[in-house]
Amino acid sequence: MNAIDRLIEQIKKKNNSTVMGLDPRIESVPEYIKNEAYKKYGKNIKGAAEALLEYNIKLIDATADLIPAVKPQIAFYELLGEEGFRIFRETCNYAKSKGLLVIGDVKRGDIGSTAEAYSSAYLGRIGAELGQQAVFDIDFVTVNPYLGEDSIKPFLEDCKKYGKGLFILVKTSNKSSGDMQDLLTFGGKFLYEHAAGLVDKWSQELIGENGYSAVGAVVGATYPDQVTSLREILKKSYILVPGYGAQGGTAIDAAKAFKMDGLGAIVNASRSIITAYKSERWKNTYSEERFDEAARAEVIRMRDELNKEIARKIARH
Amino acid sequence: MNAIDRLIEQIKKKNNSTVMGLDPRIESVPEYIKNEAYKKYGKNIKGAAEALLEYNIKLIDATADLIPAVKPQIAFYELLGEEGFRIFRETCNYAKSKGLLVIGDVKRGDIGSTAEAYSSAYLGRIGAELGQQAVFDIDFVTVNPYLGEDSIKPFLEDCKKYGKGLFILVKTSNKSSGDMQDLLTFGGKFLYEHAAGLVDKWSQELIGENGYSAVGAVVGATYPDQVTSLREILKKSYILVPGYGAQGGTAIDAAKAFKMDGLGAIVNASRSIITAYKSERWKNTYSEERFDEAARAEVIRMRDELNKEIARKIARH
Repeated sequence: MNAIDRLIEQIKKKNNSTVMGLDPRIESVPEYIKNEAYKKYGKNIKGAAEALLEYNIKLIDATADLIPAVKPQIAFYELLGEEGFRIFRETCNYAKSKGLLVIGDVKRGDIGSTAEAYSSAYLGRIGAELGQQAVFDIDFVTVNPYLGEDSIKPFLEDCKKYGKGLFILVKTSNKSSGDMQDLLTFGGKFLYEHAAGLVDKWSQELIGENGYSAVGAVVGATYPDQVTSLREILKKSYILVPGYGAQGGTAIDAAKAFKMDGLGAIVNASRSIITAYKSERWKNTYSEERFDEAARAEVIRMRDELNKEIARKIARH
Repeated sequence: MNAIDRLIEQIKKKNNSTVMGLDPRIESVPEYIKNEAYKKYGKNIKGAAEALLEYNIKLIDATADLIPAVKPQIAFYELLGEEGFRIFRETCNYAKSKGLLVIGDVKRGDIGSTAEAYSSAYLGRIGAELGQQAVFDIDFVTVNPYLGEDSIKPFLEDCKKYGKGLFILVKTSNKSSGDMQDLLTFGGKFLYEHAAGLVDKWSQELIGENGYSAVGAVVGATYPDQVTSLREILKKSYILVPGYGAQGGTAIDAAKAFKMDGLGAIVNASRSIITAYKSERWKNTYSEERFDEAARAEVIRMRDELNKEIARKIARH
């Protein structure tokens, strides 16, 4: 089944287009989890990795019935070397066992056989010699378009073969994303519009039953005007919208990425959910020990806020 | 000591500006190494990882006195999950123990605290809570500029703090690199020239004793005209030149990346060295069991060929 249809199925079932970013920093993990892990495994990389895994598992348990997908940011796992990679895999497997889709925020971008290796690791299977094993076997990855079609093709092939999907960077949520992405090109398009045009082209190869493609784009909520213009160019693509919450993007901004069918985008929040227990909004209600309940409360609040803005946008239309 | 000075020291000592790309594919590892590893660890991911490590170690042993650096391409390690990550680290450590510099070809590109996490993992130290440990502690990484300065700054900070360096993608060696990189921007510059301008700006922060910066650029040998024009823009930067050998770039093309002092670039070859035993040039001289001798022979051949072309270029000047 096309990955975007599987994602839409979850979105409809849960009436929620927000996803939880699992970007765990050891500094953000509640003390009691860390203490237990350090006691059992030592105050070292192994102990830290086990603490992050426990934190992730509790966050998934608290929200799996509410959200369609999680988006682990792999940098926070790579930080812990092979132990981090192991708990990245275990986190992904745990999320999948709870019926969630997994979007690996890996932002890889490389060429030819190197792109094939990345794609095999995250979406596909590895080496005939090892019996076509899956390694991470997640549902979507994010990729960087700077190296052009050669860097995307191997992923597209695995998407077709294994029912997977991509979100390709178009306009990122950070302050300096304009250094490159906002350059005006000779044909009168901004570079991010050119990237969106490529995504739109590639998206045609993977249209699912809902009319959306498994090839999506990343467009930050922090650039609401660009979200609006890119929504037009990206005709069949889902838009993954980062930048909501801690980075300053609002539900009104994020709603611009949706289409009139109420679909077409997923909105990610990481820190504002997974460290909700520290936030002004929730810290007086939930103690550190109840970080998972705080995450759940924030997921519900965010879902309702976003659904309200999507409904408003459709009503105004 | 500035990373580029450390690299130049090795280059001068060995009279060699070529680096060996450690991009090991399990299909390319000689049978006897695989059989031993599979017998000891099983024909599985663990066995495959151990075979790749043994292959790398023998390649390093055979060439460490000749080359200044190795460039492991991390995708081929990620492919094997946490086992692959472990042998990536062990390969890097082994190369360092032999006096080689390590350029991690990771092509990461992300923002803010995510970029910090990547930088901490590869170049810096992790978490105060874990006692500022180094994880990979390699000398250089490659990074992608599509997300702008936010994605580079955290790396620059670690480069200053820990004596490390970067090679930033400017014009990649692949066929479709032009999809994005060759777009003509409104000011009359190609996108790759714009990227080079940013690299030149960032390079000013990390000039070493030799007058070169620890902030370099990646420019493929497969685009010789662009190598020439970019050599002008990248005034202080070392250029990492991929695309030599298996991808079609020649020594004449690669020589264009060098300055009149005979420095200013390193040329990478991966397949043509590490699978030299399979090549038309060497397969009749070296059996599969002598793959490491074949690699050594190819390193010497490539060094001499490149040195000749650099000398010619300087003489013509």
